[in-house]
Amino acid sequence: MNNESTKIKVSAFRWVPPVAQGLVRDLRVRWALEEVGLAYEERLIAPEDQQSGTYLALQPFGQVPTYEEDGLVLFESGAIVLHIAERSEKLMPSDSAARARIKAWMFAALNTVEPPILFLNVLNMLQDRDDSAKLLRPAIMAEIHKRLTSVHRRLGGKAYLEDRFTAADLLLVTVLRILRRSELLEKVPELDAYRLRCEARPAFQRALADQMARFAENAPPQSQASVNNRLQSIFRDDRGTQP
Amino acid sequence: MNNESTKIKVSAFRWVPPVAQGLVRDLRVRWALEEVGLAYEERLIAPEDQQSGTYLALQPFGQVPTYEEDGLVLFESGAIVLHIAERSEKLMPSDSAARARIKAWMFAALNTVEPPILFLNVLNMLQDRDDSAKLLRPAIMAEIHKRLTSVHRRLGGKAYLEDRFTAADLLLVTVLRILRRSELLEKVPELDAYRLRCEARPAFQRALADQMARFAENAPPQSQASVNNRLQSIFRDDRGTQP
Repeated sequence: MNNESTKIKVSAFRWVPPVAQGLVRDLRVRWALEEVGLAYEERLIAPEDQQSGTYLALQPFGQVPTYEEDGLVLFESGAIVLHIAERSEKLMPSDSAARARIKAWMFAALNTVEPPILFLNVLNMLQDRDDSAKLLRPAIMAEIHKRLTSVHRRLGGKAYLEDRFTAADLLLVTVLRILRRSELLEKVPELDAYRLRCEARPAFQRALADQMARFAENAPPQSQASVNNRLQSIFRDDRGTQP
Repeated sequence: MNNESTKIKVSAFRWVPPVAQGLVRDLRVRWALEEVGLAYEERLIAPEDQQSGTYLALQPFGQVPTYEEDGLVLFESGAIVLHIAERSEKLMPSDSAARARIKAWMFAALNTVEPPILFLNVLNMLQDRDDSAKLLRPAIMAEIHKRLTSVHRRLGGKAYLEDRFTAADLLLVTVLRILRRSELLEKVPELDAYRLRCEARPAFQRALADQMARFAENAPPQSQASVNNRLQSIFRDDRGTQP
């Protein structure tokens, strides 16, 4: 969504390799803004912009996304989604206990569910040229499976973590989505159904289409990144790629 | 701090191996409660309690800490610290822009700074018996160094992230602390000085002493955990161990 009159600006990459497309973390912010109905502009950045003084003043780690609004500058996708959600009942109900629970799940998505998934990404990328992942990979896959099972158990057949879609589902689904082509999610089919239910929301579809549209517009002639670059980029950029 | 009249209860491990002592994540919650002056009771748990139905009802992943107060049950150390901080100017000023920035750093501490440090922990634990870490370890150490440098640059010689100690410093320091015996922190001495400045606070000292006191009281006759157990535990429990 683009609107010249809005004051919200979100940073996003001009282009990323196909493996990361649809997963870069500005997707979380785009989705939240679409859910609450706030228009935004994009600040599209290239790899060479990430370590510029101008951009580091907005984002201390040179990652995406950033969020600018009326002089306020925020970074970290989780914090930005929380900031947006706190302004609208659409993503966070007014009940204080529910709000606290939703925030617990927002942190759980990013600090308990996501880290081993990102480790697995790194190990998978190494696998082609090195057997260093042999010992660790099965242990990490088992751990991810356990965490997915924990989420599934807590969902307990409900459509959402709370009685309706909230910012907790939004962040959790952007994490589960990293595994969308992995057997790990296939093994917990109800959890994958939950992901698909959330991804079917029109707000998600608009957010995804907008991220993908920028990549299509800015695709380089040679779009094949080396394993080396992919390994480097997963640590450098605020992005995930699917195992 | 223990007080029979309080209604706040925080879960913590009865005992953990020495390598994890002083790092288990209930420390974050103890510290926050000490800073704002709220008394709490402990819910001490053993490894066999972690997957019990009673405990999983409080903490879906079987980790520590949990936070119970007047029927509200929270999990995830970041979310609990946020919940405590939102109730007191001592950890979060009333200015809305400052609050948003503090939340950005709370998420950054746990979702940008901490994940590669935990990954390094895992690789370090494998190093004794396997060379699988050889390729990945230098790349991850370089990435951690880069993130520490980013934090240092943003601090820019200030004593704290904001103009005084806040919940953002609290979480960030509990992450930096995982590296307290590592050359990685030695290489950014001003950042280590920042950590030591925050750890010198009486509230931190009380929180640390209370966590350590429980471990001393409950130390098993044989306190040497195998590398295997350590590897398993870093993924199972909500804890960090130093590289």
